Amino acid sequence: MSSPPGGEVELIARLSQLLGEPPSEVILGIGDDCAALDLGGPDYWLWTMDTLIEEVHFHTDYMPSYQLGRKSLAVNLSDIAAMGGEPLYALVSLGWPPGRDLAGALEFGEGLAASAREYQMAVIGGDTVASPEGISVTLTVLGRVPKNEMLGRFGAKAGDRLYVTGPLGLSAAGLEVLKGNLSLDEKEKAPLVQAHLDPRPQLAAGRLLAKEKLATAMIDLSDGVATDLMHLCRQSGLGARLWAEAVPLTSGVLKVAALLNRDPLDLALTGGEDYELLFTVPPVLEDRLPRAFAQAGLRPPHLLGEMVPGEEVLLITGKKEKIISGRGYDHFRLDPREESV
Amino acid sequence: MSSPPGGEVELIARLSQLLGEPPSEVILGIGDDCAALDLGGPDYWLWTMDTLIEEVHFHTDYMPSYQLGRKSLAVNLSDIAAMGGEPLYALVSLGWPPGRDLAGALEFGEGLAASAREYQMAVIGGDTVASPEGISVTLTVLGRVPKNEMLGRFGAKAGDRLYVTGPLGLSAAGLEVLKGNLSLDEKEKAPLVQAHLDPRPQLAAGRLLAKEKLATAMIDLSDGVATDLMHLCRQSGLGARLWAEAVPLTSGVLKVAALLNRDPLDLALTGGEDYELLFTVPPVLEDRLPRAFAQAGLRPPHLLGEMVPGEEVLLITGKKEKIISGRGYDHFRLDPREESV
Repeated sequence: MSSPPGGEVELIARLSQLLGEPPSEVILGIGDDCAALDLGGPDYWLWTMDTLIEEVHFHTDYMPSYQLGRKSLAVNLSDIAAMGGEPLYALVSLGWPPGRDLAGALEFGEGLAASAREYQMAVIGGDTVASPEGISVTLTVLGRVPKNEMLGRFGAKAGDRLYVTGPLGLSAAGLEVLKGNLSLDEKEKAPLVQAHLDPRPQLAAGRLLAKEKLATAMIDLSDGVATDLMHLCRQSGLGARLWAEAVPLTSGVLKVAALLNRDPLDLALTGGEDYELLFTVPPVLEDRLPRAFAQAGLRPPHLLGEMVPGEEVLLITGKKEKIISGRGYDHFRLDPREESV
Repeated sequence: MSSPPGGEVELIARLSQLLGEPPSEVILGIGDDCAALDLGGPDYWLWTMDTLIEEVHFHTDYMPSYQLGRKSLAVNLSDIAAMGGEPLYALVSLGWPPGRDLAGALEFGEGLAASAREYQMAVIGGDTVASPEGISVTLTVLGRVPKNEMLGRFGAKAGDRLYVTGPLGLSAAGLEVLKGNLSLDEKEKAPLVQAHLDPRPQLAAGRLLAKEKLATAMIDLSDGVATDLMHLCRQSGLGARLWAEAVPLTSGVLKVAALLNRDPLDLALTGGEDYELLFTVPPVLEDRLPRAFAQAGLRPPHLLGEMVPGEEVLLITGKKEKIISGRGYDHFRLDPREESV
């Protein structure tokens, strides 16, 4: 492609410039997981939209329509979770190729409906269109969060500790399992494949952190820690240090990395689509974290680094430091026929 | 395609069934131009989403990126207009093929931004994704309407008169001009081409009708009168009679129809994408209509029929009657490589 250089981040920055300053009731606009609106009342309204496109975000040879319905909601709910919010309503736009079996569109609807029930929200409208080449799905979700509880990518302080709600790299490893012929037994495969096909938005953890005021900043992991932590750093005006030995991995991720001859940290930090929450905690509140999660019946979060002055995301291995910010996936730099996790 | 039969209308009905009953604060869900939410306060919040897909809704050989930015907002604003509402905020999801010049994505942004300024609303966030084949654009818009003013597809009464805000078939004729080599002079072409590339959502007329309580039901014309009037009839539990000689045509539409050897009424009633408003007026309020429009500086609306008991849309030509409901375009029945207006 010719111009502008810099791919998606640069494109969004220039589009954002064109679109100008939003009115004052728009508390957050372009640059966070959701837009946040003050429409009166005790809550901010959270509003997000995300698109999944066939051959970019998924392939039908491994992604059943039912799971696609679930995942297309999950990736939007994850944005609501990242603000500490509660999802309420969704609209769906489904692009379906006329040559494909419409039974698949109904399976998509079944998955979407099941997922909406599970998260106690309602899909209240939408649009279906013919799509000439592949399936495309856009969902938009409205949710809310009490005004004094909202979390964003901003707000982290130097010295804050960096946590993640779950192990990393499972989705990327699961995609490798789905694509290839890796010799893993079924028990090892299952959690990886599920992480990729049916990610669970961390709504309960997000609400807990917001309500108990335990976090200072938060983002959900869609593109991978390397990229997503960079967003959080930029919005907070800080850098971050990740401790390689603290990055939470599972035996499945280690095994897939070994079979692929890849560094498991690469899968974990740049794989993307884990939809866990990455958040910062002031040291003084760290003690309360494990008990709060345990009392809420949630998995304990994992400490994996700290926020520091600066502009870079550093990976610390023993005494070695490596800059990893900017290494994350950029949609506009890859061939779309490659998988774009 | 195999099942279910019946195309888009049937698909939406079955998806709607799967998604179940919305909660009570959802005043309108699937089945109207917008969802309507009671979030407290004196207004209902209106929420809509619409998608434009390359080679289905437009072709880049005649649709400049700047106009695409404008039109993608216009089709959403038209839904807000149809409820009598005022648009406030939008999110945009732009799918752009990595092989295309990103300068086009910025031109799209310029058109979108210009249109947003024109209608005094703000695009406050969104998403960009790589699209493997063609451009796809989804916008979602939030607006509002005072609770006691909202108009929907329901509410028409037998005997109500049927009006439209402007002449019909210009967009379909404009598309024929853009596609073909019709021997029209530039002055004749211009309004047709503009109607197709840069439709103007009838927000002022929609607000006027809502505020002055002059209409009982309303819908915007995206698929064509034949299809859209059928939606209004169904939601109101009525039929309608259209008087052929009253259908507002322009000399340009007549000329294009003649050059194509087509019935101009066919262009006008099934062409689609006019984005005028079709609305019903109780006979007792008809006298007030022309003055209200004139005082607001708006074009006079055109009377073109009446609502009657029944379930059909009839076109009346002299003493002949023809059923035209169901003749409208159904996205899932056409080859997507055909133009889908």
